[in-house]
Amino acid sequence: MASSQYLKDNKDRFLEELLELLRIPSVSADSRHKEDVRNAAKYIRQKLDDAGTDKTELHETGGHPIVYGEKIIDKNLPTVLVYGHYDVQPPDPLELWDSPPFEPVIKDEKIYARGSSDDKGQMYMHIKAFEALNSTGELKCNVKFMIEGEEEVGSDGLEEFVKKNKGMLSADVILISDTSILANDNPSITVGLRGLSYVEVEVTGPNKDLHSGTFGGAVANPINTLSKMIASLHDENGRVTIPGFYDRVKNYDQAARDEMAKAPFDLEKFKKNLQINDVWGESGYTTRERIGIRPTLDVNGIWGGYTGEGAKTVLPSKAYAKISMRLVPDQDSDEITEMFEKHFKSIAPDAVKVKVVPHHGGEAAVVSTHSPAYLAASKAFEKSFGKKPVPSYEGGSIPIVALFQQELQVDPILMGFGLDDDAIHSPNEHFGLFNFYIGIETITYFYQFFSESSQE
Amino acid sequence: MASSQYLKDNKDRFLEELLELLRIPSVSADSRHKEDVRNAAKYIRQKLDDAGTDKTELHETGGHPIVYGEKIIDKNLPTVLVYGHYDVQPPDPLELWDSPPFEPVIKDEKIYARGSSDDKGQMYMHIKAFEALNSTGELKCNVKFMIEGEEEVGSDGLEEFVKKNKGMLSADVILISDTSILANDNPSITVGLRGLSYVEVEVTGPNKDLHSGTFGGAVANPINTLSKMIASLHDENGRVTIPGFYDRVKNYDQAARDEMAKAPFDLEKFKKNLQINDVWGESGYTTRERIGIRPTLDVNGIWGGYTGEGAKTVLPSKAYAKISMRLVPDQDSDEITEMFEKHFKSIAPDAVKVKVVPHHGGEAAVVSTHSPAYLAASKAFEKSFGKKPVPSYEGGSIPIVALFQQELQVDPILMGFGLDDDAIHSPNEHFGLFNFYIGIETITYFYQFFSESSQE
Repeated sequence: MASSQYLKDNKDRFLEELLELLRIPSVSADSRHKEDVRNAAKYIRQKLDDAGTDKTELHETGGHPIVYGEKIIDKNLPTVLVYGHYDVQPPDPLELWDSPPFEPVIKDEKIYARGSSDDKGQMYMHIKAFEALNSTGELKCNVKFMIEGEEEVGSDGLEEFVKKNKGMLSADVILISDTSILANDNPSITVGLRGLSYVEVEVTGPNKDLHSGTFGGAVANPINTLSKMIASLHDENGRVTIPGFYDRVKNYDQAARDEMAKAPFDLEKFKKNLQINDVWGESGYTTRERIGIRPTLDVNGIWGGYTGEGAKTVLPSKAYAKISMRLVPDQDSDEITEMFEKHFKSIAPDAVKVKVVPHHGGEAAVVSTHSPAYLAASKAFEKSFGKKPVPSYEGGSIPIVALFQQELQVDPILMGFGLDDDAIHSPNEHFGLFNFYIGIETITYFYQFFSESSQE
Repeated sequence: MASSQYLKDNKDRFLEELLELLRIPSVSADSRHKEDVRNAAKYIRQKLDDAGTDKTELHETGGHPIVYGEKIIDKNLPTVLVYGHYDVQPPDPLELWDSPPFEPVIKDEKIYARGSSDDKGQMYMHIKAFEALNSTGELKCNVKFMIEGEEEVGSDGLEEFVKKNKGMLSADVILISDTSILANDNPSITVGLRGLSYVEVEVTGPNKDLHSGTFGGAVANPINTLSKMIASLHDENGRVTIPGFYDRVKNYDQAARDEMAKAPFDLEKFKKNLQINDVWGESGYTTRERIGIRPTLDVNGIWGGYTGEGAKTVLPSKAYAKISMRLVPDQDSDEITEMFEKHFKSIAPDAVKVKVVPHHGGEAAVVSTHSPAYLAASKAFEKSFGKKPVPSYEGGSIPIVALFQQELQVDPILMGFGLDDDAIHSPNEHFGLFNFYIGIETITYFYQFFSESSQE
């Protein structure tokens, strides 16, 4: 039987297996879900085993385990290393979900559940593509799987694992499906990813919460102060004001920008989808450029004082914010985090104290469009979608991409099949059934074209 | 038996009764505590009855009930109306309390509990002073009690009650203990109170939470935007930037400011108590003036995005803040609220939508230092403290003071016995045993001097 027939025959079972995985609330950021995260890892190990990998095992880390499995057919054949993650973002705010985040439902041909698109659904396509090729005798290369459980919290364990296991992980290409295509009728392959620097800040005014009547107007309010400090981090042109922030930012010439502008993008549709009257961003750049090739600074969370029902006239002792910066080549995540910390402390007035705690970070990455692997991926998309994919620059971060490039000296291929409006990291995350199935199909074609190109 | 002996003999029972009242979590802002608030009202009614009032009853309002009780000895004698409140602020943040907020403990000669100073402890002094005078035949005037349960949420019910019952509430003076003295060896009587305008704001960016990688830099982040809007509400001199905000603010000439400056105030001690390196406020005014005679704008609470453990790269749909302005004569609370709303909407960029919801408000008030009631209060303090009290301007608000002046045409006497560091509205609120007992004593003296002055 051909692998294409195998895919058709096993369609429903593939979906059922994914739904079962989606039912496991593997929220890596929340320590209350530690056991759930582990159960997701065990489930993946079992499914890899069933699909035909050898040496399938859980590797312990300081945090959540990494699932590793491999199928070595012939050491002389090329090797594909598949990376994915089985952990998911926290589902908050729960009240905005139309159905419970860990009880997947199919609606309008889409799977609704936390992790459906990011990244359980996309990662699972690889296990099923491998199963199809392996079961039908069409697998013509070696395959290694490395599926981690800490992508949403910084991949700390993975970094050590990769550095310690370079030999075991050696490969000719790393395959990752954790990104989007432009549209279902506009396939694309991600060639640019932004890096990340993520910090938490704490501003302390008085040593205790005060009555805003008895003290207001005479003591610096940490919320007002934090707001002012945050406001000052952008200038009137939407540029980040941290000294040195743009020093290493790669500039693109007009020809390159013209090339990028060819990717289809409908600004009116973009605004309508988000129900906003206007976009916002750095002056002198288009919306696509602001997302693809420019760095940013966003407050991801803020809290302080009384946030309950009704009114409380408190002048709080502390205010907090989580702030992240998306980085582009050739900014350095650690350097940017240091710059932020130094600058943020320097702008604090004497009346408050400031603490900056770095969370995880990661580097931006750019992928070549001329490698044999990219060309194989391009042909695979063309075969399944009937249309040649365009190279695209995405705003998100997959920090481990830069890690792989540096430690394993291998370029990744970012063949994601999600859509920008999958609502990943948001309530009602979903993943199209079309995308799930065409993803599996495209991956099998990639293996075929990549194996062929290596034999030429 | 003289009332002074009665006070000594019943000291311990008075305290026990107060502790029992403090055990009732009468948080008026939290609908889950509705029944507790009612139980506190019933407790007060019972204690008034026991102390000797006639016609003691609960008056229903749209919210929490008002306790009313009176003792009319002779219609030709002067009448004292006592106002207080039995509701308390929410105890959040709970984790910062050294002992549970509704399980009072005595430590270092202080009562620690939510409401111990604001206002259960201070209100209860009046019931006990009345009991002492009434039980010993020393009461020489009529007394009316009006104790409400909505002071911390805007006194909506009280306003209607006062307007409807002007005859029943007619009096020659209104006595309120809900303020502070400067220090235990520096007694003072509050003659200035600030008004209040309190609003909640909501800033909406995109219609759903977004991934800050996929959208960050191209879509206005409501937290960044709210921070910028809040920051712009003060200029570099610490002045509020809302157009018209200062138009009606009463200015004091140098002579009046010199007079106020005579009240003792130790800036270094103030900073040390709060563990701050510097104070903050409107340029050109001292700390005491910033609190006493200048209006303010404070953010009392802010929230939005991900505020849990770890990192979540969300670009949230919404951000919120609770903002209050302390007002001074002759600012008008409703007018200021309108000005705020208009201004806040005008500074919102096109990329977001803004909602402003007014909470409660109240007017500032100034009390004469020449009335017979003020002079009686001054003599009472001098007798109990051994030192003449100074008139003081407090930063807090008791909106009903202006209401009483307007509707009942009676000036209040604000004879509070708390201290500024009682941590009202904060964790570990407390009230000194010294203050509780000297308060009861001083109130009995007030009745004596006030009755005498009316007979002259």
